[in-house]
Amino acid sequence: MKKVGIYAGSFDPVTNGHLDIIERASHLFDQLYVVVMLNTSKNYTFNFTEKVQLLKTAVASLPVDNVLVESAQEKLVAQVAQELQAHWLVRGIRTAADFNYEISMQQINKLQKPDLETIYLVSSPQYMYLSSSMVKEVAQLNGKIDQLVPNNVAQALLAKLGERQ
Amino acid sequence: MKKVGIYAGSFDPVTNGHLDIIERASHLFDQLYVVVMLNTSKNYTFNFTEKVQLLKTAVASLPVDNVLVESAQEKLVAQVAQELQAHWLVRGIRTAADFNYEISMQQINKLQKPDLETIYLVSSPQYMYLSSSMVKEVAQLNGKIDQLVPNNVAQALLAKLGERQ
Amino acid sequence: MKKVGIYAGSFDPVTNGHLDIIERASHLFDQLYVVVMLNTSKNYTFNFTEKVQLLKTAVASLPVDNVLVESAQEKLVAQVAQELQAHWLVRGIRTAADFNYEISMQQINKLQKPDLETIYLVSSPQYMYLSSSMVKEVAQLNGKIDQLVPNNVAQALLAKLGERQ
Amino acid sequence: MKKVGIYAGSFDPVTNGHLDIIERASHLFDQLYVVVMLNTSKNYTFNFTEKVQLLKTAVASLPVDNVLVESAQEKLVAQVAQELQAHWLVRGIRTAADFNYEISMQQINKLQKPDLETIYLVSSPQYMYLSSSMVKEVAQLNGKIDQLVPNNVAQALLAKLGERQ
Amino acid sequence: MKKVGIYAGSFDPVTNGHLDIIERASHLFDQLYVVVMLNTSKNYTFNFTEKVQLLKTAVASLPVDNVLVESAQEKLVAQVAQELQAHWLVRGIRTAADFNYEISMQQINKLQKPDLETIYLVSSPQYMYLSSSMVKEVAQLNGKIDQLVPNNVAQALLAKLGERQ
Amino acid sequence: MKKVGIYAGSFDPVTNGHLDIIERASHLFDQLYVVVMLNTSKNYTFNFTEKVQLLKTAVASLPVDNVLVESAQEKLVAQVAQELQAHWLVRGIRTAADFNYEISMQQINKLQKPDLETIYLVSSPQYMYLSSSMVKEVAQLNGKIDQLVPNNVAQALLAKLGERQ
Repeated sequence: MKKVGIYAGSFDPVTNGHLDIIERASHLFDQLYVVVMLNTSKNYTFNFTEKVQLLKTAVASLPVDNVLVESAQEKLVAQVAQELQAHWLVRGIRTAADFNYEISMQQINKLQKPDLETIYLVSSPQYMYLSSSMVKEVAQLNGKIDQLVPNNVAQALLAKLGERQ
Repeated sequence: MKKVGIYAGSFDPVTNGHLDIIERASHLFDQLYVVVMLNTSKNYTFNFTEKVQLLKTAVASLPVDNVLVESAQEKLVAQVAQELQAHWLVRGIRTAADFNYEISMQQINKLQKPDLETIYLVSSPQYMYLSSSMVKEVAQLNGKIDQLVPNNVAQALLAKLGERQ
Repeated sequence: MKKVGIYAGSFDPVTNGHLDIIERASHLFDQLYVVVMLNTSKNYTFNFTEKVQLLKTAVASLPVDNVLVESAQEKLVAQVAQELQAHWLVRGIRTAADFNYEISMQQINKLQKPDLETIYLVSSPQYMYLSSSMVKEVAQLNGKIDQLVPNNVAQALLAKLGERQ
Repeated sequence: MKKVGIYAGSFDPVTNGHLDIIERASHLFDQLYVVVMLNTSKNYTFNFTEKVQLLKTAVASLPVDNVLVESAQEKLVAQVAQELQAHWLVRGIRTAADFNYEISMQQINKLQKPDLETIYLVSSPQYMYLSSSMVKEVAQLNGKIDQLVPNNVAQALLAKLGERQ
Repeated sequence: MKKVGIYAGSFDPVTNGHLDIIERASHLFDQLYVVVMLNTSKNYTFNFTEKVQLLKTAVASLPVDNVLVESAQEKLVAQVAQELQAHWLVRGIRTAADFNYEISMQQINKLQKPDLETIYLVSSPQYMYLSSSMVKEVAQLNGKIDQLVPNNVAQALLAKLGERQ
Repeated sequence: MKKVGIYAGSFDPVTNGHLDIIERASHLFDQLYVVVMLNTSKNYTFNFTEKVQLLKTAVASLPVDNVLVESAQEKLVAQVAQELQAHWLVRGIRTAADFNYEISMQQINKLQKPDLETIYLVSSPQYMYLSSSMVKEVAQLNGKIDQLVPNNVAQALLAKLGERQ
C-alpha cells in the first residue's frame, strides 16, 4: 500500500517552522499532501490564492520531491484525508499546551474517520516559539523576521503591510 | 440543611458532556440548579430562550428528578448562587489547562461570596474532548455530531445552520 | 440514601492542607471517613499507629462531627470504599500537575468499582504548596513549620527527629 | 553601569497584581521604567492617556522612588528597551500556562535584541488569579473589586462603566 | 530506502497500552523493532529474559507481521537505533506532563545521532492512564488487571506476586 | 545597599546550563554567591569537596568577576541567604513543570524569610533539556557529553565512572 500523509493548516503565511515539519515528515511517506484549509469564520491576512502560492514557492525550495500543495474549502480535515486517500495526519507540536488541544482534535477526527492515524513531530528548538500570528505581529511593529519565514513570504508580508498604510 | 448545588454555563448548546456532569452531580445534592448565564459580550449561536428550552428538554430525559433549569441575565455566578441559596458550585474539568483557569475563577468567586464552595468532577473519558464550540464547528463542516449532543440539540443545530445559508 | 464519602491517603503526617480539605468536604456528606492507607512499599516517618493517632487528635479539633478516622492495610481505595459503603471519593488538588495524575487514578478506580464517583476540591491558596514530605524536609533542616501542621503534629515531628540524632 | 529595567504592558487598567510586581522589581534596579504599550489591534476600555494617568497615580503611592511611567506607541518591547537603554525586561508570571507563552516571547525578543535579558517574578499568592480583563468582567457584573485594584482605578472603572449605560 | 522504526522501553511488563502503540506504529514502517532496554540502575519486577519472552508472546498475537522483538543491554537508544539502522524512534505519549519529558529526551538523542527522527503517537483514550508500574501496584493490591495487560502477562504477574508471599 | 544574590543547588556536577544561568545572573548583582548545598538524604555521584572544586574551576573560566562559590551543610536555602546577607534567590527554569515546583519552593522560603525575593531566568534553548542527572545517565551509557558540561567536569565524570568498573 502506498503510504500517504496529510499536513493541513491555514498557513497565513507559511513559516520556517511549517517548512521544518514538512521536510521532516516527507521522509515518512511516499506522498505528503500539504493542504491549505479555508475557514470562513477567521480573518486572514493573505487571501486563499496568495496563501497557496506562497506555500508552493516555499515548498519548491525544499530538498524533497514527494510533497504536493493542495487546498480545501470549508471541510473537516478528516474529510479531506478521505478524498486524498491519506491514512496519516501529521501535526507539529511546540508546547505542552498545544498537546492538550491536539488530543481533543485527534478524538474529533477519529469520530469522523476511525482509520485516520495522527502522528506528531516536535518543532525543532529554533522554531518552538514560532507561529504565523507572531510573525505578523513582529512584522507589523517593524521587527526582524528574516530568520522566521522564507524570503518570498517576508517580501509578501512587507508588501501586504505597506498596502495597509 | 438542604444541600443545594448550582451548575452554570452558557450552554450554547448543551452537549452530552454537560449532561454527564449534571447527572453525576445531581446525586450529591438534594437540589441541583442548572443555570444558563447570559453574557452580553459574547456572540451566541442560540438565543437565550432557545438555550434554556434545549437544556430543559435534554435534562428531562435524564434518570434523575432533582434538577431544575434556571436562567440568569448578566450576573456573577456567586450572586446567582446567593439568590438560589446554593452553597456548592459544580464545575466539570476536562484538561489540566482547564484546571488553571478554574483556580482563578474559584478565587474570584470566593472574594464575592466566601462561603461558596466549588467542587470539580472530571469529564468522562469519552467527553474529554468535547465543547459546545467544537460541536458547532464540526456541524458547520458537515461532520458527524450524533454522539456529541442529545437528539433535540442535533436537530436544532442543523436547523440553525440551515437558516444561515 | 445516606451520603457517605471517603478521603484516603498516607497522612505521614497529616498537614493543615489535609485538615482544610477534610473540613470543607465534611459538609457535603452525612458521613466522611478519613482513611490512613498502608502501602508497605513506602518508607514512612511515622508508623501506622502513630499516623492514625495524630490524625484522630487533629480531626477532633475541627468544628464538625461527622468525620471518622479509619485505617486500611494494603488495599485499593476502591475496595475500602466498597467496605465502608462510600459512593464518593474526595481528593484535594493543588496544581495542574496533580490533575493529570488524578485523572489516571480515577480511571483505575472506575475499573475496580464503576459506581465510585470522585470529587475534587482545590486546596486553599495558603496550602497550595504544602505536602507532608515538604513539611518533613523543612523540619529536618530546622525551618519553621508551625503554620503548616497542627500543634500535636509539630510536636510529634520534632520528637521523631530528635530520636534520630 | 547603571542598572535599568523595563516592565511593559497594556495596563487596561493597572491592577494590584501589577503594582506588586513593580514594587518588588524596583529594588533590583537603579531605574525601573513602567511602559504603557499601545497595540492598535486591540480594543481597550481606557484610552492611552487615561491608562498612563491611572498608572502614574497608582505608582506614586508606592514606597519606592526609582520608578518612571513611560508610554510607547506601536513598537516592539525590544525596541523600547533599546531606546530607554534598559538591559532587563521584567515579567510577572502567574501560572504554568503563562510560562509557555513567556518562553516564546523571550525568544522573539532575543532575536530583535540579543543582549536583552528577561527576568521573571512570580505573582504573590493573593494576586495569582488577577488580570485586567477579569477585573473588568467582575466590575461589569457589579462584583466587588476593591481588593483587586487601587482606589483611583476602582473609581475610574465605575465611572467608565457608568458612561456606557 | 527501507523504512525502519524502533520502539524502546523497559516493558516491565508490556501492557495493552504498549501493544496499542506497537500495532498502530507498525503500519508506518517496513520493519518495526520493539526493543527491551536494560537499565541496571533500576529494580525490575521481571528479569530481562522474562520481559523479552512476555513481549514476544504478546506481539505474536497482534495482526501485523513486521514487528521484531530485540533487546539491548545498557546502551543509549540512539546507539541501538544506529545498530539496527533505524531512522525513526517511536514514542507513545499519554499526558502533557509526558510531553515535556519527551522534548528533553529528543534533544539528548539528537545530540547523539542527529539523523534520528522521533515521532509521537498519542495513547488511545482507554489506555491513557495506563503504565507498567500502575498495573503492578493494582495487581499487588488484588485489583482487576484483565483489561490492562494481555493474558500471558496477567498470569505471569500473578505468579510473580505469588512467589513473593 | 549592596545587591547580593544567591544561586544554590546540589551541582552533582555543574553543567553548562548552570553556568549559563550563573553568568547571566551575575550581571544583576554586585555579588553573586553560588552555593553547593549538602542534602544527606540524597546519593551523590561526587562528594562535597569534589562538587565545590568542579564548580570553582568552571566558574573561574566565566568572563565575570563577582561570583563566589560557597558551600552549606544541611540547611534551608533561606537560612543560607540570611547568613550571606543575600536578598535575592536566583532560580533557572526549564519547563512549565519546573514552574509549578518553583512556586511551592518560593512559598516555603517566604515562610522562613519573608524578605527573600526569588527571581527566575529561563534556560537558554540549547540547555533546556539539560540536567545533572541526564548528563550522568548519558555518560554512563558512553554517550557524548562534551556539549553539556565544561571540560573539567567531563574529565572528572569519566574518571569517576572508570573507578566504578
